[in-house]
Amino acid sequence: MKKFLNNPKDFVDEMLEGIYFAHGEAVEPANGELRCLVSKHKKKGKVGIATGGGSGHLPLFLGYVGKGMLDGCAVGGVFQSPTSDEMLSVTKEIDSGEGVLYIYGNYNGDIFNFDMAAEMAEMEGIRVKTVVAGEDVATGPRPISGEKNIRRGVAGIFFVYKIAGAAAAEMLTLDEVYQLALEASKRVASMGVALSPCVVPRIGHASFEIGENEMEIGMGIHGETGIRRGELKKADEIVDEVLPLLISDLNLGENDEIAVLINGLGATPLEEQYIINRRVAKTLRDRKIKVYKTYVGEYATSMEMAGVSISLFHLDATMKKYLLLSADTPMFKQF
Amino acid sequence: MKKFLNNPKDFVDEMLEGIYFAHGEAVEPANGELRCLVSKHKKKGKVGIATGGGSGHLPLFLGYVGKGMLDGCAVGGVFQSPTSDEMLSVTKEIDSGEGVLYIYGNYNGDIFNFDMAAEMAEMEGIRVKTVVAGEDVATGPRPISGEKNIRRGVAGIFFVYKIAGAAAAEMLTLDEVYQLALEASKRVASMGVALSPCVVPRIGHASFEIGENEMEIGMGIHGETGIRRGELKKADEIVDEVLPLLISDLNLGENDEIAVLINGLGATPLEEQYIINRRVAKTLRDRKIKVYKTYVGEYATSMEMAGVSISLFHLDATMKKYLLLSADTPMFKQF
Repeated sequence: MKKFLNNPKDFVDEMLEGIYFAHGEAVEPANGELRCLVSKHKKKGKVGIATGGGSGHLPLFLGYVGKGMLDGCAVGGVFQSPTSDEMLSVTKEIDSGEGVLYIYGNYNGDIFNFDMAAEMAEMEGIRVKTVVAGEDVATGPRPISGEKNIRRGVAGIFFVYKIAGAAAAEMLTLDEVYQLALEASKRVASMGVALSPCVVPRIGHASFEIGENEMEIGMGIHGETGIRRGELKKADEIVDEVLPLLISDLNLGENDEIAVLINGLGATPLEEQYIINRRVAKTLRDRKIKVYKTYVGEYATSMEMAGVSISLFHLDATMKKYLLLSADTPMFKQF
Repeated sequence: MKKFLNNPKDFVDEMLEGIYFAHGEAVEPANGELRCLVSKHKKKGKVGIATGGGSGHLPLFLGYVGKGMLDGCAVGGVFQSPTSDEMLSVTKEIDSGEGVLYIYGNYNGDIFNFDMAAEMAEMEGIRVKTVVAGEDVATGPRPISGEKNIRRGVAGIFFVYKIAGAAAAEMLTLDEVYQLALEASKRVASMGVALSPCVVPRIGHASFEIGENEMEIGMGIHGETGIRRGELKKADEIVDEVLPLLISDLNLGENDEIAVLINGLGATPLEEQYIINRRVAKTLRDRKIKVYKTYVGEYATSMEMAGVSISLFHLDATMKKYLLLSADTPMFKQF
């Protein structure tokens, strides 16, 4: 795997400079801090939504900062949490007095730093609520109400962003946006299938291998171990293994309505993602589960990892309303 | 390189089924013909715009069929031209009496079939005009007025689609849309850099290799030979080699305004495309060439090929106007 880069240690900052050059009309560094990316479109009285996480997953996380989605993102090194100071800078920049909602993936480093940032923000008089998104069915059972969620966050966080972002744009209060984001996070289930590893620039080689004729079902977006490794199967067979786990996790039945996200992990061509979608759509049709909207493309990647993930989002009238509202960010647009 | 597929011979048709499932609100097969993809948004009295070409380049070509862009696309096998019959079906379906403009890339098979389709369409009373886009600076000199253009078409066709699509949506006549598309095609210059090959599904292995520490400057989107192969350089050095060729081809100078397209060829992460954009933007700023708008992402791919291409589009007041108008297609959206 070969990369376009200069000095590996500059990977994230140079990427960010390239992003500010390309999307200078939409985003800017808060107080000149490159890694504290905030939207230029500030709306008085709106709840702020912040996210953050390691780099290497574009368009996740920062690509969703913009109209109808997020207001700011703290950007970490590749696969490393941003600092609590960076999160605090973003928080202060995007608060307009109505409070800030944190939405991020279920990783220990991010939780530790966001919790610290929330405490610091509260001390400065900014109200903060938090939704930790974790929906990877490969990583453990759905938490029973009140229990800690042990599932790691993968591409399904896109749906949580979309719902919360639309609700905030509609000028709902912090408590209302929080409740909707929390509800959305419980209605998502995902699982990925990896065909090849990825290379962290500062390491320079893959930190694990997947054999020539192998795939790994349930691998995480940092290469975390999945539920099984085995011979590479046909596209339809892979869907037939993964999709029932998601349907069952969400307890979906006839006439339930869902949104589907077929997510490319990096190197897998869009053509193949649509071949996956074909089988997903056919299976759902056979089961009389209604697909209300489908997203196909790269929404949460692992640099040049080959693979896809499938996410289902169980809808109701409220979720449908916010899902359909428009969004205009550097890396996701919906009319 | 491993793929998500079933039987390789079904690759294109299964991909198309997946696309119709995902985007059924926007596109449909003309008269049930899978490979004749047309927009569902028909506008009486509007000039139709058709394209076509081999598969394996998503979002090119069919992904740009939709509001403000194209009306139909004839879809070929992987790296194979669609047939003239398929092109004719698309043409008949999208003509609303105002004629049809063909815009496609400069490849012999496509030219042969589109010319035949145009003749058949004319016999059925449909007026057809054609713009063949070819802007790869690696493939020969800019044609002198009246000469045949020997340059192959790569990602820059996106700008020709955008201008023509917006002009047609504004209800300009066939002759007017044709003139604008032709003008746009002359104002674009592109060049690609490949780091790895891609795999045609029916072949099952790469049909060429690029060495472990090598890159190929000027390689085409089907793996056509470029202008030189050599040691993989740093991102900035690659930009410093390619960008001046584009600037000089378009004869750009101080205060000229351009749009930039940094295009991922498939496996290259978005992060690296932004690192490329950083150097492009800095160099243009140093040369006092004004970047009016920047696009970064996958616009014309070669399946899982690692690499990027850079396209510059020289603007004037007219081109700026049509470039900025909105578009809403399954794979490209702009507010």
